[in-house]
Amino acid sequence: MAKVVNAQIVKNLPWEDRKEGDFLPVWRYSKNPIIKRNVNRTVERTFNSGFVPFGDEFVGVFRGDTYTGIYKLFVGRSKDALNFTLEEEPIHFVDKNGNPLPDTRFSYDPRVVLLEGSYYIIFADYFADVTICIAKTDDFKTFTKLEYPFLPNCRNGALFPRKINGKYMILARPSDNASSLFGNIFISESYDMEYWGHHRLIARNNWANWNGVKCGGGPIPIETDEGWLVFTHGVLFNCNNLVYSMGAMLLDRDDPTKVLYNCENFLLTPQELYETTGHTPNVVFPTNVLVGENGKLAIYYGSADCYTCLAFSTVDIIIDYIKEHDCLSK
Amino acid sequence: MAKVVNAQIVKNLPWEDRKEGDFLPVWRYSKNPIIKRNVNRTVERTFNSGFVPFGDEFVGVFRGDTYTGIYKLFVGRSKDALNFTLEEEPIHFVDKNGNPLPDTRFSYDPRVVLLEGSYYIIFADYFADVTICIAKTDDFKTFTKLEYPFLPNCRNGALFPRKINGKYMILARPSDNASSLFGNIFISESYDMEYWGHHRLIARNNWANWNGVKCGGGPIPIETDEGWLVFTHGVLFNCNNLVYSMGAMLLDRDDPTKVLYNCENFLLTPQELYETTGHTPNVVFPTNVLVGENGKLAIYYGSADCYTCLAFSTVDIIIDYIKEHDCLSK
Amino acid sequence: MAKVVNAQIVKNLPWEDRKEGDFLPVWRYSKNPIIKRNVNRTVERTFNSGFVPFGDEFVGVFRGDTYTGIYKLFVGRSKDALNFTLEEEPIHFVDKNGNPLPDTRFSYDPRVVLLEGSYYIIFADYFADVTICIAKTDDFKTFTKLEYPFLPNCRNGALFPRKINGKYMILARPSDNASSLFGNIFISESYDMEYWGHHRLIARNNWANWNGVKCGGGPIPIETDEGWLVFTHGVLFNCNNLVYSMGAMLLDRDDPTKVLYNCENFLLTPQELYETTGHTPNVVFPTNVLVGENGKLAIYYGSADCYTCLAFSTVDIIIDYIKEHDCLSK
Amino acid sequence: MAKVVNAQIVKNLPWEDRKEGDFLPVWRYSKNPIIKRNVNRTVERTFNSGFVPFGDEFVGVFRGDTYTGIYKLFVGRSKDALNFTLEEEPIHFVDKNGNPLPDTRFSYDPRVVLLEGSYYIIFADYFADVTICIAKTDDFKTFTKLEYPFLPNCRNGALFPRKINGKYMILARPSDNASSLFGNIFISESYDMEYWGHHRLIARNNWANWNGVKCGGGPIPIETDEGWLVFTHGVLFNCNNLVYSMGAMLLDRDDPTKVLYNCENFLLTPQELYETTGHTPNVVFPTNVLVGENGKLAIYYGSADCYTCLAFSTVDIIIDYIKEHDCLSK
Amino acid sequence: MAKVVNAQIVKNLPWEDRKEGDFLPVWRYSKNPIIKRNVNRTVERTFNSGFVPFGDEFVGVFRGDTYTGIYKLFVGRSKDALNFTLEEEPIHFVDKNGNPLPDTRFSYDPRVVLLEGSYYIIFADYFADVTICIAKTDDFKTFTKLEYPFLPNCRNGALFPRKINGKYMILARPSDNASSLFGNIFISESYDMEYWGHHRLIARNNWANWNGVKCGGGPIPIETDEGWLVFTHGVLFNCNNLVYSMGAMLLDRDDPTKVLYNCENFLLTPQELYETTGHTPNVVFPTNVLVGENGKLAIYYGSADCYTCLAFSTVDIIIDYIKEHDCLSK
Amino acid sequence: MAKVVNAQIVKNLPWEDRKEGDFLPVWRYSKNPIIKRNVNRTVERTFNSGFVPFGDEFVGVFRGDTYTGIYKLFVGRSKDALNFTLEEEPIHFVDKNGNPLPDTRFSYDPRVVLLEGSYYIIFADYFADVTICIAKTDDFKTFTKLEYPFLPNCRNGALFPRKINGKYMILARPSDNASSLFGNIFISESYDMEYWGHHRLIARNNWANWNGVKCGGGPIPIETDEGWLVFTHGVLFNCNNLVYSMGAMLLDRDDPTKVLYNCENFLLTPQELYETTGHTPNVVFPTNVLVGENGKLAIYYGSADCYTCLAFSTVDIIIDYIKEHDCLSK
Repeated sequence: MAKVVNAQIVKNLPWEDRKEGDFLPVWRYSKNPIIKRNVNRTVERTFNSGFVPFGDEFVGVFRGDTYTGIYKLFVGRSKDALNFTLEEEPIHFVDKNGNPLPDTRFSYDPRVVLLEGSYYIIFADYFADVTICIAKTDDFKTFTKLEYPFLPNCRNGALFPRKINGKYMILARPSDNASSLFGNIFISESYDMEYWGHHRLIARNNWANWNGVKCGGGPIPIETDEGWLVFTHGVLFNCNNLVYSMGAMLLDRDDPTKVLYNCENFLLTPQELYETTGHTPNVVFPTNVLVGENGKLAIYYGSADCYTCLAFSTVDIIIDYIKEHDCLSK
Repeated sequence: MAKVVNAQIVKNLPWEDRKEGDFLPVWRYSKNPIIKRNVNRTVERTFNSGFVPFGDEFVGVFRGDTYTGIYKLFVGRSKDALNFTLEEEPIHFVDKNGNPLPDTRFSYDPRVVLLEGSYYIIFADYFADVTICIAKTDDFKTFTKLEYPFLPNCRNGALFPRKINGKYMILARPSDNASSLFGNIFISESYDMEYWGHHRLIARNNWANWNGVKCGGGPIPIETDEGWLVFTHGVLFNCNNLVYSMGAMLLDRDDPTKVLYNCENFLLTPQELYETTGHTPNVVFPTNVLVGENGKLAIYYGSADCYTCLAFSTVDIIIDYIKEHDCLSK
Repeated sequence: MAKVVNAQIVKNLPWEDRKEGDFLPVWRYSKNPIIKRNVNRTVERTFNSGFVPFGDEFVGVFRGDTYTGIYKLFVGRSKDALNFTLEEEPIHFVDKNGNPLPDTRFSYDPRVVLLEGSYYIIFADYFADVTICIAKTDDFKTFTKLEYPFLPNCRNGALFPRKINGKYMILARPSDNASSLFGNIFISESYDMEYWGHHRLIARNNWANWNGVKCGGGPIPIETDEGWLVFTHGVLFNCNNLVYSMGAMLLDRDDPTKVLYNCENFLLTPQELYETTGHTPNVVFPTNVLVGENGKLAIYYGSADCYTCLAFSTVDIIIDYIKEHDCLSK
Repeated sequence: MAKVVNAQIVKNLPWEDRKEGDFLPVWRYSKNPIIKRNVNRTVERTFNSGFVPFGDEFVGVFRGDTYTGIYKLFVGRSKDALNFTLEEEPIHFVDKNGNPLPDTRFSYDPRVVLLEGSYYIIFADYFADVTICIAKTDDFKTFTKLEYPFLPNCRNGALFPRKINGKYMILARPSDNASSLFGNIFISESYDMEYWGHHRLIARNNWANWNGVKCGGGPIPIETDEGWLVFTHGVLFNCNNLVYSMGAMLLDRDDPTKVLYNCENFLLTPQELYETTGHTPNVVFPTNVLVGENGKLAIYYGSADCYTCLAFSTVDIIIDYIKEHDCLSK
Repeated sequence: MAKVVNAQIVKNLPWEDRKEGDFLPVWRYSKNPIIKRNVNRTVERTFNSGFVPFGDEFVGVFRGDTYTGIYKLFVGRSKDALNFTLEEEPIHFVDKNGNPLPDTRFSYDPRVVLLEGSYYIIFADYFADVTICIAKTDDFKTFTKLEYPFLPNCRNGALFPRKINGKYMILARPSDNASSLFGNIFISESYDMEYWGHHRLIARNNWANWNGVKCGGGPIPIETDEGWLVFTHGVLFNCNNLVYSMGAMLLDRDDPTKVLYNCENFLLTPQELYETTGHTPNVVFPTNVLVGENGKLAIYYGSADCYTCLAFSTVDIIIDYIKEHDCLSK
Repeated sequence: MAKVVNAQIVKNLPWEDRKEGDFLPVWRYSKNPIIKRNVNRTVERTFNSGFVPFGDEFVGVFRGDTYTGIYKLFVGRSKDALNFTLEEEPIHFVDKNGNPLPDTRFSYDPRVVLLEGSYYIIFADYFADVTICIAKTDDFKTFTKLEYPFLPNCRNGALFPRKINGKYMILARPSDNASSLFGNIFISESYDMEYWGHHRLIARNNWANWNGVKCGGGPIPIETDEGWLVFTHGVLFNCNNLVYSMGAMLLDRDDPTKVLYNCENFLLTPQELYETTGHTPNVVFPTNVLVGENGKLAIYYGSADCYTCLAFSTVDIIIDYIKEHDCLSK
């Protein structure tokens, strides 16, 4: 039995049991989507976001696609991790001295992690072209932008929740300046979150499979006694469109540049109307996971670039499934 | 309070009030779509069309996509502006001498306007490539093609319903010979509807916004005491497809080449299944507006290149919203 | 009244009568789709497949898109031609000597035909690039691959169910090595199923129509006393995506290189949510037909690269419709 | 024998006789190119330009590609039509009231014509996208921009040197906003050079031939007693690049919308190193013709977007060749 | 020492010795190109052609790109294999009964082989799309088209000069309907030149090398006691254009589907101005070889889709080079 | 008068004076190209390379495009910086422990710099996709690969020849995984050449100019008392191909992230046949500069991806020209 380690265990985790006879490793919340369109007077759609337990509620940073069509970041709050309220004013960042920074053209797809007592937001930002940005907050009111870890173009950054061997580690998916038809997962490390190096490739896209053109990181990695559980997204291109699915792999706990198992199967692929239709059809894109007791997982994912959705599993089920369908051992 | 001027006020305008708590400027008809598929033995789908009060009914010209896949124009009629009957034989045009013209390869997206006692149809026609055609009818039986106002490639023409300063005025969206990934709105003028000139650019596409790749005119402009209310469409390109939304702007009443306000927000974007799915997913495309009493507006739009749909608003709500979200003053 | 000739007449053919007032030549089964997603522990989706009466049941070869995203062939069985069970292990082919062949990268879109006492599977296989493969079985347990009839790239092969003038005949749609934006139907012949020649073009794609970019063969041709009834698929490209519809034509019974009638209209186009949404939106793709008494036809088609669906018609209705809408006589 | 009518006959026309045995209708100047690179301190390359006899010299407007890479218009002068001096400061236009206009992003490919006592410059200008601009000068010092005759995108305008039936006439090649892979020749008319209409298509590109993707107008049409002699350019696309060649046709003298003959053969195609290599390889692009005595023609063309070149022929040779190789009569 | 077998040995073979110090396996004729532009009154360029000793001269079939831009086939003759005269009228084919066939849109890149006492022409022809055609002549006056061996799209056919194991064999390079960015070499066989089968892949394009996107057959294979010597072309795509080079491989004499050696190096790549510039820059494309005494080879190749060129080598030098740089043994 | 600082002054610098009347800031060596094709038995072309004074000769690392078409790195030597000899065996790198590393798929475009007593090679290497690699050597015999400074995709790295404020600095041009049609220059810094950060954008491509689609760094920056002189390349895309030119800018000596002047004009653009024709037409690509006395510069550049060429200037002329044509002050 795999055990989650070092995680913030959420007591009131949203939960539904798997249905009798369902043999799939991840199952959807019956009331999906949990956040629908027309969120408030500024935000038409919110999805691909991250949040954490904070005091007696959940607080996070949300991608909000506004009525102008552009995407920015907004603070959102929830009591139950099911019903959320988003602020109507986007986040305005400050620099290390607390001085206001000019807003960039866009920001999107934030992940949030508690690391050494502060909260870090990792998101796609506009720095000449799109690249990963890391920002820091203690109160979800003041957000300080740190140095860009990478040159553009880069997306889907996910910081590990603790230093490993004295170094911060981050996942990244380099891309081009448009909707890249390629994408691999790299891992990089840093002593100070200012200078990054020791880049390693840990997963490639896989011709003709569900991750045929791209694979990229998703939520913050989850530490277990069997290794780091990393949920990913993969993309295939069929003759009509891209399809985004959810995958997973397991990295070595002490050296995450070593991939122990990489699941050949997707865990979840667009099947429901709220996943197959909308602004960008056929997108399942996980960006946040809450961990409950007994390894219960509440997996939050964006669907169709429209909705925030929820699915469930347990660490055991996922890790067993990854091992059973490991493609490294073939 | 903005007042509609010079309009044919429709007494029995289809109408539903906005729902309590709905803060959006345009709201959908609860029984959408009003025209579904398999319209008759010739036409599989009708949408992006124009019609006007005519005698004791409504008569118009409809884009009909037939069972062969090609698109032609058909006369359609309705008693209530909700239930329509389309003819099964497409319109065959005559020249100025009343002689039959050969059918062109296709015709589509007609707008209809009463102007100086006659009805003008403005539509996309095949003249070497696609371009705007103007035709004239008094009885919706005989349709006379006038000179093409522009060289190809051009689409989305909308004639103003009266001469301004002695000149006819028309909106146009120049394009290329395919599904252009660009599009701006121009206005041109003519003394005689034969020779056109004094072309002016009035709106550009707007990077990364809902009208990121194209913006174009929609229904016939509506004259108000605050200016010409122009509904538009805008198009963005995400990584999977194009999304067509509805927008609006306000032009100077005496000189429509002057844009008073241009709404930064879309007014309506594909959200319902009849808009997000179908022949061309994610299309909301307004082409006709009926004006009722007290500034009530019945806005007809095509959805997904499949259906004819209806939405409501009032001149006041729209103009306030345009002013509140004006992007020219930023 | 057209009569089906030489067909295996299915007694317990699934059937529903056409609805009162429905003027369309093909009508859908009310309980579509008949095979939904998550088919079994290996196959997520099955569609575009072929099967035949075999003993007291129906047996066939099914395209199965697995949880890895790749597509392979699986044996499937049914008692009623409505409920199917697929094997979880894909078919592994042998050569003419019965020796196992290595699995190819992928195989898809099989058709199945009884010919001279054996069952032939015609499908898209990987031979340097995609090309048509013919395999043979007597028991649906051992499948022997024959010589590839054509150089790549080629798809949508359909063998005729008997020799004509002493020669086997096959339909094929040459393509390129990707999602070709072109496609025409050719017919080729062979004395021995090893060497093929006398290639003839019988149908071309038709600009701006429902088969504007591609047309290709579908199920095994059905012999009638009026000629060979050939169901086809056609593809158009609109500004947002490809749309796959079903068509039909009638070939000369003694010389199928002669097209007697080619229907200008499609017979079925994506309209239902299970056709307009899914893995590949807007796909109706017929690959199998069962023939009942009195010319009743149960037409099986894949929808949205997701589901196996069923529609009905009769030989009479179809042939009348083809003649009424013939494009060759125009 | 065809006779040039209404032309400015140039006495000191540059000239070389055709070589013995040369059967081609146009022959190159032996000292080509007449203007090489590094023209002056502003202009690196000049080509695709127009000029006329003016006083005792030749004056014209030249496309100058500067050391920044951008293309602007410059006044150029020559005593002998072989050696030219270009100004180092680009032309700055004024409006009808003589007020300076802001420079546009670029201007290129000017033609110059004497019409009703003034000189008109027709060139590609930036108006939202590229479109044809007409400017007027009497002294080649002050240049007044007139109304844009057409909506963008449009290029290769050529004004006729006199009114015909009371109307100005112009050739145009509509295009898209980039390097269009299509192009046809239209002719339009105007009473006042402000409002244009009565657009007619006079020549289409011709699949797989030298003008397979585009054809467009070139120099100012030359009036002869047999009709208007129009030199054109045509473009083919082979697997490696575009190739621009020179063609010609003959239009009815009283109604230039009627094409009398259209030459199926090109007249000149890139063969010399100064045509096949350079900034844009394989370009022969005629934009100016001087007429001498006895129908002698000095045809100036840009080569490889690098050089100004010269070729010779006579009206007789050209018109005979056009008639001999007419494609309309086939 | 490799020995040519079964070849027509040409006594007066054009020849130049390799220059002192030249270490390359193929060397150019010092007077290249041997056929320049403006070949006659119909043909502007001739290249990529085939010819054979015939009586006391050389006769062949030549690709002629005419002054209209289209490419057809012409008979050409030479006394010395250096100076050629082409007919001005293209070849018009007849069917097996001697009845004239309609001209197809285009024909190009012919190879010519003496086989069982007749001459066969293998070329790219227009049959719905481009495909390989085989025609037969005994006198180079009457040319009879045989059945198309393959479905389109296919190019670069090369028949072997004799039956092997009782079967005709041909090389082919399947392609798409445009300038394919892929291409592999297949070999197929036939008992009767009507029905073809037993297709085998013998060479693939090779990522990032000189044959990175395509490889295809060239001249008629040359039989030696060490195997069939096959000259090929390979194509790479750099950031600016395609580059066509010459390669070679050695096939098993008794079973040419077996590749004995495949040369990793190109033998000749565009270096001279007549190869790097012209209608299609950077093309070296071998299509004909004459064999002299002592294994001397006169290799004819088209350059830049403009010129007919000549290079030399010997069977020994080539075969040694192929073995030395074999990529199969790596 | 600008003065070069901290440079290795080359005594026997190749040199030619600027021609009388030549007003351009850079002039070509009259005997270009200095390295032609068929360099040795392995390398067909060498260009885009770097070398330095080493002992009594010049030694460097050269891009060699071999007869297989692939590009690798080779050691090259010269006595006079005009005549070079390249090794026939490519460089095989070792890791930090001196263990041999597997060869990567390709390596290209090396720059070489003397820094703190060792020689560093900065080149494009294959790490999942193309990225910048830094290697180190003391003897040009053993080459040790260091950590990749950046995630792919990245090219055109140029290390500064000394630490500035205690940090190594490098120029880079992020790109996509193919022939990117975008490219900007960034500067990054590192304390240890292992971890890099503080990325800053210093130059962007400039629409419609000579660097319209890309700009990137070139040779190692040259320190002067007025700032760092940085030669760059810029790329435009015309309708037929890409054109690569040479540019320059001046960076602040103490803080190179500050651009003092950026020259709006190119310094050298393809004009000579050895630049406009070849493997990749129209490429001038500077990668190495030798500094002589009195600020004399020998600028080595690759041309047409074929040749190594040489041009001259002086620090004074260049810096004056940059200032005169600075685009930052506009």
